[in-house]
Amino acid sequence: MDSMKSTPSTQTMKTQSTGLHGQIAGKTRLCTVGKSGSGLTYLGYDIVELAEHCEFEEVAYLLLNGELPNASQLNAFQEKLMALRELPESLCRILETLPADSHPMGVMRTGVSALGDLEPELNFSQQKEVAYRLLAVLPAICVYWYRFSHDGVRVPTQTSEPTIGGHFLAMLNDEGISDLHRKVMHSSLILYAEHEFNASTFTARVCASTLSDMHSCVSAAIGALKGPLHGGANEAAMDMIEQWNSPDEAEAGILSMLERKEKIMGFGHAVYRESDPRNAVIKKWSQSLAEEVGDTVLYPISERCEAVMWREKKLFCNADFFHASAYHFMGIPTKLFTPIFVMSRITGWAAHVFEQRADNRIIRPSADYIGPEARSLVPLTQRTH
Amino acid sequence: MDSMKSTPSTQTMKTQSTGLHGQIAGKTRLCTVGKSGSGLTYLGYDIVELAEHCEFEEVAYLLLNGELPNASQLNAFQEKLMALRELPESLCRILETLPADSHPMGVMRTGVSALGDLEPELNFSQQKEVAYRLLAVLPAICVYWYRFSHDGVRVPTQTSEPTIGGHFLAMLNDEGISDLHRKVMHSSLILYAEHEFNASTFTARVCASTLSDMHSCVSAAIGALKGPLHGGANEAAMDMIEQWNSPDEAEAGILSMLERKEKIMGFGHAVYRESDPRNAVIKKWSQSLAEEVGDTVLYPISERCEAVMWREKKLFCNADFFHASAYHFMGIPTKLFTPIFVMSRITGWAAHVFEQRADNRIIRPSADYIGPEARSLVPLTQRTH
Ligand SMILES: CC(C)(COP(=O)(O)OP(=O)(O)OC[C@H]1O[C@@H](n2cnc3c(N)ncnc32)[C@H](O)[C@@H]1OP(=O)(O)O)[C@@H](O)C(=O)NCCC(=O)NCCS
Ligand SMILES: CC(C)(COP(=O)(O)OP(=O)(O)OC[C@H]1O[C@@H](n2cnc3c(N)ncnc32)[C@H](O)[C@@H]1OP(=O)(O)O)[C@@H](O)C(=O)NCCC(=O)NCCS
Repeated sequence: MDSMKSTPSTQTMKTQSTGLHGQIAGKTRLCTVGKSGSGLTYLGYDIVELAEHCEFEEVAYLLLNGELPNASQLNAFQEKLMALRELPESLCRILETLPADSHPMGVMRTGVSALGDLEPELNFSQQKEVAYRLLAVLPAICVYWYRFSHDGVRVPTQTSEPTIGGHFLAMLNDEGISDLHRKVMHSSLILYAEHEFNASTFTARVCASTLSDMHSCVSAAIGALKGPLHGGANEAAMDMIEQWNSPDEAEAGILSMLERKEKIMGFGHAVYRESDPRNAVIKKWSQSLAEEVGDTVLYPISERCEAVMWREKKLFCNADFFHASAYHFMGIPTKLFTPIFVMSRITGWAAHVFEQRADNRIIRPSADYIGPEARSLVPLTQRTH
Repeated sequence: MDSMKSTPSTQTMKTQSTGLHGQIAGKTRLCTVGKSGSGLTYLGYDIVELAEHCEFEEVAYLLLNGELPNASQLNAFQEKLMALRELPESLCRILETLPADSHPMGVMRTGVSALGDLEPELNFSQQKEVAYRLLAVLPAICVYWYRFSHDGVRVPTQTSEPTIGGHFLAMLNDEGISDLHRKVMHSSLILYAEHEFNASTFTARVCASTLSDMHSCVSAAIGALKGPLHGGANEAAMDMIEQWNSPDEAEAGILSMLERKEKIMGFGHAVYRESDPRNAVIKKWSQSLAEEVGDTVLYPISERCEAVMWREKKLFCNADFFHASAYHFMGIPTKLFTPIFVMSRITGWAAHVFEQRADNRIIRPSADYIGPEARSLVPLTQRTH
């Protein structure tokens, strides 16, 4: 019976490589990885220039609107985001229900999903508003739950800090924030904002290709980013470096992990081969923060890990490795590291959803079948095994 | 600066087709679509045979364990699932917070995500238990919210119905269930259980490839299935056929939709070309149910749509089209159609997550860049546009 499309083309396209590495899955205007300049550009701008000179909100605007804002556009954008920070009452109640030992990435996934039930995207014409709302509210989703479950405090989700990074730190600490911390947050959020067809973004695009709503796409992406091979790497790197007391101890530790063929989190990359351009930027900030707090242990340990991994395996730090020490020096609890990634990457995810919707075909690949041959059914009562 | 992997291979693999149609994205033992028999097999068994002779729980067991159960295994499996039906108290509180006009698919996405916060999968060795728990509890997640928000009732999530389909109907209706309805539910849930690398399953696999947890993968898949190009099609088909009062009206309606180049939901398929093997099965049940309720309108309208679409466009009914009338005849509210799909497809999703984990590489394709050339940053105050 020939009731299906003939699929000879799948045979010729079958490759040894798995994970679709190097295979084109669609078009994008947003980002190049490994193509020109330092190896990472957002809409043509080199990531190193952006991270050095811009505020995160400029880059968020760039990704969501296609061009950098001028001064008055930036101002209007920031005011708009500030006005969108408040959590709906019912979302506060839901967040209060989630236990203190939940994974904060799971909390954010639930928070975004519930927000989609409370404030649904009814029409794609609302997509930019929905993206702005998510960008504005994600820090509160995370910190409201964290402070309630850990400190028993219902933290106000409006602060006087105009920027997203400052707002996050202000809710977390109830204290004034240093200019250094504000600058590090801008830079960090810029580095994490967008990275082409990485696994979480690709998850969002596959979801978007069924013409589902923005909250479905974003909560799906959060779930993917949660994995230790992806966003979870910065937390895993922190857990690792924290267990050592000196660079020599770290070196011995790394060597024995490599011997046991364990993966060292915060190293390696699916696309870059010799370095991750984001590393130099965040490493410099980690060093400044180490000086600020007078650290003589964690930063030297991190540097040693970097040297040993390169010497032994020609593996380099990716964006996550020095983010671990940098966030730690700013007093951020380890389990909130990956949620910060979410607060930034929401911009890339949403921009990719816009793109997918603008030129959509359902994403539906084929599989190479390796299962049992056709077999006929044995009635239940005659199955003897 | 050459700090990245050279990617010449991406050029040669670039194709015109989008959506990865016909491209191999991984291996599976679970399913063939369009390869042999009627065109759809689960672990080698033809879907038509399974749908005719099995209970859904047998097929769920097959997908999650690789072989059909014998009678005592089936019995133990059903008892296990019955024991896992209860919702945690906090999940009830969360579901009570979600408004009546939420989309039930959004509610299920939130419910699964929250369950992951309350009962996390701490280790992949728990994966089968987690899948069983989800399979057992999904009907309650959906119906508890539905009855609370629509009828003001806290419905008991334990019923005497041993099967998943019967349990769902019993919670929904507070009434006895006919044998015909029980049989239709088995058949329907079997038809929807698995379908290779469809968009929601592929979403789950991309998420799983970061080594994220089961609840992240499943809530991501629910979000993808929600889209009108995917699971949402059975609801959309119902909304469409319901507006017509006779086959002639339906014919005129379809013709004018086609003239306006609108998509007719419940028709067409990304892989099958001449028919969807699931259609014959569910169409037969829809006809029996039409007889049971004495329908002389909706079923004839559905048949006419089928004939017109084939005559005009050589497009055939997919699994969703006759599901619309079948569910309607059983008294199921239209907005719960796609959630039933979830209660079934959880088996395929979970089985694919097991597979992905057993032989994993992070799924990270490349993109074809069509954005701006490299450009240098203009300082904020000098941007004049
Ligand atoms: C990022 C990552 C998932 C890319 O995966 P990938 O594209 O499959 O990796 P590659 O093909 O480049 O791996 C080449 C080899 O280096 C090894 N390798 C890669 N990263 C490694 C690491 N961090 N530690 C130890 N070995 C590593 C691989 O195991 C592989 O070895 P093999 O050929 O003996 O199997 C992988 O490098 C990794 O798991 N890194 C740690 C997690 C992390 O930091 N993620 C954040 C990314 S921004
Ligand atoms: C299932 C579906 C997403 C497959 O998408 P696809 O693989 O991109 O579709 P095809 O490549 O086979 O489409 C071929 C042509 O038929 C048209 N077509 C396909 N399904 C159609 C439908 N249901 N109504 C009208 N036209 C349709 C397409 O628009 C396309 O026309 P074009 O060449 O003029 O652009 C698509 O058929 C569809 O949207 N169906 C309706 C939604 C639905 O029922 N989904 C449930 C699937 S189980």
